[in-house]
Amino acid sequence: MKEIEVKTPARPAGSYKILISHGMLGKVLSAAGALLPKRSLFIVTDANVVAAGHLQTLTRGKKVNKYVIEPCGEESKNLGTIAKIVDAMEAASLGRDTTVIALGGGTVGDMAGFAAAIFKRGVPVVQVPTTTVAQADSAIGGKTGVDSSQSKNAYGAFHHPSAVFIDVDTLKTLDERQFKAGLAESVKHALLADAEYFEYLDKNMDEVLARDPDAMEHLAEVNSRIKAFVVQHDPEEKNLRRILNYGHTVGHAVESATGYSLLHGEAIAIGMVAAGKIGMAVGLGDGRKLGRVEKVLDRIGLPVVMPKGIETPVLLEAMSRDKKAVSKRPRFVLLEDIGKVHSKDGQWAVEVPEETVEKVLAELSS
Amino acid sequence: MKEIEVKTPARPAGSYKILISHGMLGKVLSAAGALLPKRSLFIVTDANVVAAGHLQTLTRGKKVNKYVIEPCGEESKNLGTIAKIVDAMEAASLGRDTTVIALGGGTVGDMAGFAAAIFKRGVPVVQVPTTTVAQADSAIGGKTGVDSSQSKNAYGAFHHPSAVFIDVDTLKTLDERQFKAGLAESVKHALLADAEYFEYLDKNMDEVLARDPDAMEHLAEVNSRIKAFVVQHDPEEKNLRRILNYGHTVGHAVESATGYSLLHGEAIAIGMVAAGKIGMAVGLGDGRKLGRVEKVLDRIGLPVVMPKGIETPVLLEAMSRDKKAVSKRPRFVLLEDIGKVHSKDGQWAVEVPEETVEKVLAELSS
Repeated sequence: MKEIEVKTPARPAGSYKILISHGMLGKVLSAAGALLPKRSLFIVTDANVVAAGHLQTLTRGKKVNKYVIEPCGEESKNLGTIAKIVDAMEAASLGRDTTVIALGGGTVGDMAGFAAAIFKRGVPVVQVPTTTVAQADSAIGGKTGVDSSQSKNAYGAFHHPSAVFIDVDTLKTLDERQFKAGLAESVKHALLADAEYFEYLDKNMDEVLARDPDAMEHLAEVNSRIKAFVVQHDPEEKNLRRILNYGHTVGHAVESATGYSLLHGEAIAIGMVAAGKIGMAVGLGDGRKLGRVEKVLDRIGLPVVMPKGIETPVLLEAMSRDKKAVSKRPRFVLLEDIGKVHSKDGQWAVEVPEETVEKVLAELSS
Repeated sequence: MKEIEVKTPARPAGSYKILISHGMLGKVLSAAGALLPKRSLFIVTDANVVAAGHLQTLTRGKKVNKYVIEPCGEESKNLGTIAKIVDAMEAASLGRDTTVIALGGGTVGDMAGFAAAIFKRGVPVVQVPTTTVAQADSAIGGKTGVDSSQSKNAYGAFHHPSAVFIDVDTLKTLDERQFKAGLAESVKHALLADAEYFEYLDKNMDEVLARDPDAMEHLAEVNSRIKAFVVQHDPEEKNLRRILNYGHTVGHAVESATGYSLLHGEAIAIGMVAAGKIGMAVGLGDGRKLGRVEKVLDRIGLPVVMPKGIETPVLLEAMSRDKKAVSKRPRFVLLEDIGKVHSKDGQWAVEVPEETVEKVLAELSS
């Protein structure tokens, strides 16, 4: 037997910037061009974003090669759309010297980021998130991907953006339900890492719901800081990054059991209440604090109980397929207090007796 | 404007092994299991490899989850096949704790490697190349990908294998034309980096063509050493790795102009003769040495002149789209001598006056 070793070189540490402001969308393309010189730009966006006028603001009426995803949302989040994006790039004779600009919500960012990750073995992407959920969560951290017929994000890559530009003015045109659902990520970040942020949300909810620009910038900043802290300590979700799945074990099961009729943030709101109750059942937190969480979610207008007709066994089955599950036993991210995650033996996602989970789910459905 | 920096951590240097032997295919799965413990195995192969009996030898008749690509070759090298591979993995309830085993030639390795690179944001792949071209070239170095309707490897990822197992016994069943075409990569490696290897090929061609196991192991070893040296110095093809494109500027154009009726190695043989003539035209090499190269290629049974009916303008047009082209002007890897690549100002791919290229192509077609 002959043996030859192939060395794979180290990759140096790097960084990218999240820039938060309002009224800056018209300057993003020139800023991206300055950051990544001598590259052609290719914009990926969707029909909703175009209808809201943001593409026009971004390009300032100049002709830029682009692909507009339609229909919007999860329905298009598949390999077929990736092929259409790449076909459009090739039809425009673009090559490796291209930068992809992702203008839109979470699904646009996921698809544009994934297309950039695999086009000619990888070109840079600049994320320009336009929704509460994308600005708080999905545009930061480098997760990209599309769904298969059988599961979400079955195809994907870790592909860090070269920059993230958050213009909170884009939130003005966001549909009320989408806007509110995205705020669930802000509550999640506060619960996981920042008690002061939770107080801010509690006290300034009127300004938040009115989409006051200063409040929106503050949210974007705190969300970005928390998300950045977590992902830079565990970019490939080997442990700490799992805390961002707070509320997601039950939340994903609710999404699946309702056939995705709830928005992600709505399902996560229910999931966070469930996680709070599960925490209490295993001796973490107390009812008064959980009551405060429920009150904030309710003021936003997010659900805090299970929708009618969702059977507990269906949820349990869906949870056994959760990505944090080990040997089909789901694991949960739990809180010790508002602003503080629980960990056990260095693990941030912990196992909970099935009967406890079952009892809490039944209680939430009654 | 608020600004937040997200750090992306360094990735440490690593390595993987190429193991070369004969009669070891039946031990590969247990070796892969020992190398990457606690992972389910999933084999990707194609109908030709199954027909040759190699899948049976690999699994020793045990049931292992798999996907068999059909039809074989470039025709299947597209996103549709990637979707079928991933569907088969999901149907077998496989998740992130899977290792993909790529058993086959270059296209199988490219597809299996790419599916592994993007399944659930990346799982390990072990390459088990079964053809001369895959053993010499494509299984080593981490390039994976599939074609779009418009270009080769439009979709792809750099995804290093966790190990490469080369069992030269698999070459015994290889179709004569495929076997010979793959030897073009051996000649290429010798010309680029190893004059002694060129002498070996010249003196031992009878043993090589008879597929003598010792000769096959020697070729696999020298090819692996040369390829490993190059890719570990420039894994993402920013400069040095381009030398592996020797003969490919014209070769790819010939493939395209003949509608892929020539095998890759056949087109590269013509491309290497063209590169030799272009080198001479710009003052590199001499006719006697080029004559030796032509003689070796001819003894293998590879073409050294252009097939009838290929028009020079068609070739020039195709070359303007070569990936090494800058502003549509193709660049060429050239030799200073057998075993020594030419470089200019630190670049390994150099520009050549168009009239020189045109003259050489016309000469090869006459």
